[in-house]
Amino acid sequence: MTTLTKKNIAVLGSTGSIGTQALEVIGANPDHFSAYALTAGFNVDLLIQQCRRFEPEVVVIADESKYQYLKEAVADLPVKVFAGADAIAQVAEMEVVDIVLTAMVGYSGLKPTIHAVKAGKTIALANKETLVVAGELINDLCEKHKASIIPVDSEHSAIFQCLTGEGADTVEQLILTASGGPFRTMSREELEYVTPSQALKHPNWEMGAKITIDSASMMNKGFEVIEAKWLFGVDPSRIQVVVHPQSIIHSMVQFRDGSIKAQLGLPDMKLPIQYAFTYPDRLVSNFPRLNFALYPQFTFEQPDPEKFRNLAYAYYALDKAGNMPCILNAANEVVVAAFLKNRIGFLQMSDIIELTMDKCSFINHPTYDDYVRTDAEARRIAGEFIQTT
Amino acid sequence: MTTLTKKNIAVLGSTGSIGTQALEVIGANPDHFSAYALTAGFNVDLLIQQCRRFEPEVVVIADESKYQYLKEAVADLPVKVFAGADAIAQVAEMEVVDIVLTAMVGYSGLKPTIHAVKAGKTIALANKETLVVAGELINDLCEKHKASIIPVDSEHSAIFQCLTGEGADTVEQLILTASGGPFRTMSREELEYVTPSQALKHPNWEMGAKITIDSASMMNKGFEVIEAKWLFGVDPSRIQVVVHPQSIIHSMVQFRDGSIKAQLGLPDMKLPIQYAFTYPDRLVSNFPRLNFALYPQFTFEQPDPEKFRNLAYAYYALDKAGNMPCILNAANEVVVAAFLKNRIGFLQMSDIIELTMDKCSFINHPTYDDYVRTDAEARRIAGEFIQTT
Repeated sequence: MTTLTKKNIAVLGSTGSIGTQALEVIGANPDHFSAYALTAGFNVDLLIQQCRRFEPEVVVIADESKYQYLKEAVADLPVKVFAGADAIAQVAEMEVVDIVLTAMVGYSGLKPTIHAVKAGKTIALANKETLVVAGELINDLCEKHKASIIPVDSEHSAIFQCLTGEGADTVEQLILTASGGPFRTMSREELEYVTPSQALKHPNWEMGAKITIDSASMMNKGFEVIEAKWLFGVDPSRIQVVVHPQSIIHSMVQFRDGSIKAQLGLPDMKLPIQYAFTYPDRLVSNFPRLNFALYPQFTFEQPDPEKFRNLAYAYYALDKAGNMPCILNAANEVVVAAFLKNRIGFLQMSDIIELTMDKCSFINHPTYDDYVRTDAEARRIAGEFIQTT
Repeated sequence: MTTLTKKNIAVLGSTGSIGTQALEVIGANPDHFSAYALTAGFNVDLLIQQCRRFEPEVVVIADESKYQYLKEAVADLPVKVFAGADAIAQVAEMEVVDIVLTAMVGYSGLKPTIHAVKAGKTIALANKETLVVAGELINDLCEKHKASIIPVDSEHSAIFQCLTGEGADTVEQLILTASGGPFRTMSREELEYVTPSQALKHPNWEMGAKITIDSASMMNKGFEVIEAKWLFGVDPSRIQVVVHPQSIIHSMVQFRDGSIKAQLGLPDMKLPIQYAFTYPDRLVSNFPRLNFALYPQFTFEQPDPEKFRNLAYAYYALDKAGNMPCILNAANEVVVAAFLKNRIGFLQMSDIIELTMDKCSFINHPTYDDYVRTDAEARRIAGEFIQTT
């Protein structure tokens, strides 16, 4: 039998797709986990429901205009209520918190993650943009403050699981699998006219809107290459992407003797979330098991670089280093929002990302403040390109 | 950088398929391994070549009639020459030997393995019959003498690799993959008339004759289920066999949270041999790497219990326990030899195994001497059934 002490978890982004699934994991294992703190961006009604169901000690709404409404709605509960980005950052460094799950969307996850790292926390990282934007800075801070990051992304969790018990110097190659998204078999011409609602239909995973669009454009896979570089210290030339449309093999590691380990299972984010909470142990779950009779075939193909230029831009940004991945991320956040509002077409997203990377000021060794400035500048530039489109 | 001390390896069965591949691994890594002792059954000419190439300290030929020939042929070398089964057992317990690779064929591997276990050696186990026949005895002795077994069979090496760094109590299920052999798609009627030369053509693996026939009849997979039970302490009800004709995924472990880890690569026994020598480290190899572009499809299917009854017999023998797996193994060795000599047909192998299991004396808690007697009795009974066929 295993003795897991009960862990206090701060769920940053509790009303999003990862956040709600994390609360399911916590709710299914009340002896092992408690939802100590919940933070949300704007979805105050769901946050109120979560307060009743999971009885957190602390709750924060980022949107300060909703503070009063939230405060009154949970007045009968013993929960402390706060509002604003600074309060979220403070939650991330609270002493009683054992694990900080960073499940916020996009760039907004950077600041609270830095606070959690500086407080030496164990971070279950679901916000890949944090490492995309500022991987080097985060890694330096983790080392300095003895914080540890356990990835929640299914691909990186797979690699993390495959690396368990293996020597750090034995890795030859990381093999990230990609579903190829909903447009894998479309021609470039067809891609020109796809709509947001088509892009939001992912074949295998139920996810939030931003990451679903990123999956359709393969920017998500590009970000994952960058994330993998910082999480595992592997040179981009040794990170390969293989398209595997069934999304059963979540990723692989090839070792220096030629042996490959893969982690697989049905696509279900609850598994990597729970693993990040229980690592290095594993807890019994009732998640549906993979039945090979229902998945009699796994296929593999190479990603098409002509159709999905974003993947190449990610390798380019990693190679340029400095603030280039931050520019890539900011431009992408802006173009995804514009695409979702039907302001630009699917292929124009990549066009504008490329133009923004060309035009935005390059900084070789950015500080945190440089990242903040770069993010703002890249957003402004990308916005201007959208205006003139 | 890794610092591996040079390991002295005793290769029992050096002229067989595993033995010669083990010597390739040793020859490719002279700074890490030395072929301290070589033993062979009867192939004295190859053994003489190996003496010149690998310069062992000790060499043994099991067939005592070939001792003089061997002794004279290597008279100019500083190698000590011995003959007979007892000498092989003594090699297995020599103090300077770090790893004993047991790569003898069938039941003959049992005795030297027991000697190696009693000497507290690390055993790279390629002779699965040892655990099939006497798994409980071997496990008890390993515990008593602090010997450790590292499996060389590709399936069990895969499972062993997947278990690295994982808690022993976290395993939910072992998933052994099976190629299905050369007769996977044949009907039962067609199986009636297959010839030894057809059975010796394995689709994926180059192996010795005995194991290749066992693969064609799925007895090999049955033995692997028994072997897995003893190696990993997992109940047979939690050992599943899945047919995977491409033989790229070598086997898998499903953990209690639902996560599955698989080990994969091109079919090449040198990899698990080397891993057994280097565990827990991994050494750089020049073995060909898996290229997903060349293996764009993995498929899975269920084994057909009507066509391949041996698999069911193995589960039955495990369930009966005692000396039943020993009976199964002895009967199988006899029928495989008879099939190779065209004395009986392919399907008759299973018929005679079943009859022998019914007729041979059952012993609930066999000693080593009981195993020796059971082996002899089962061989006699199976031989008689062959006579009357």
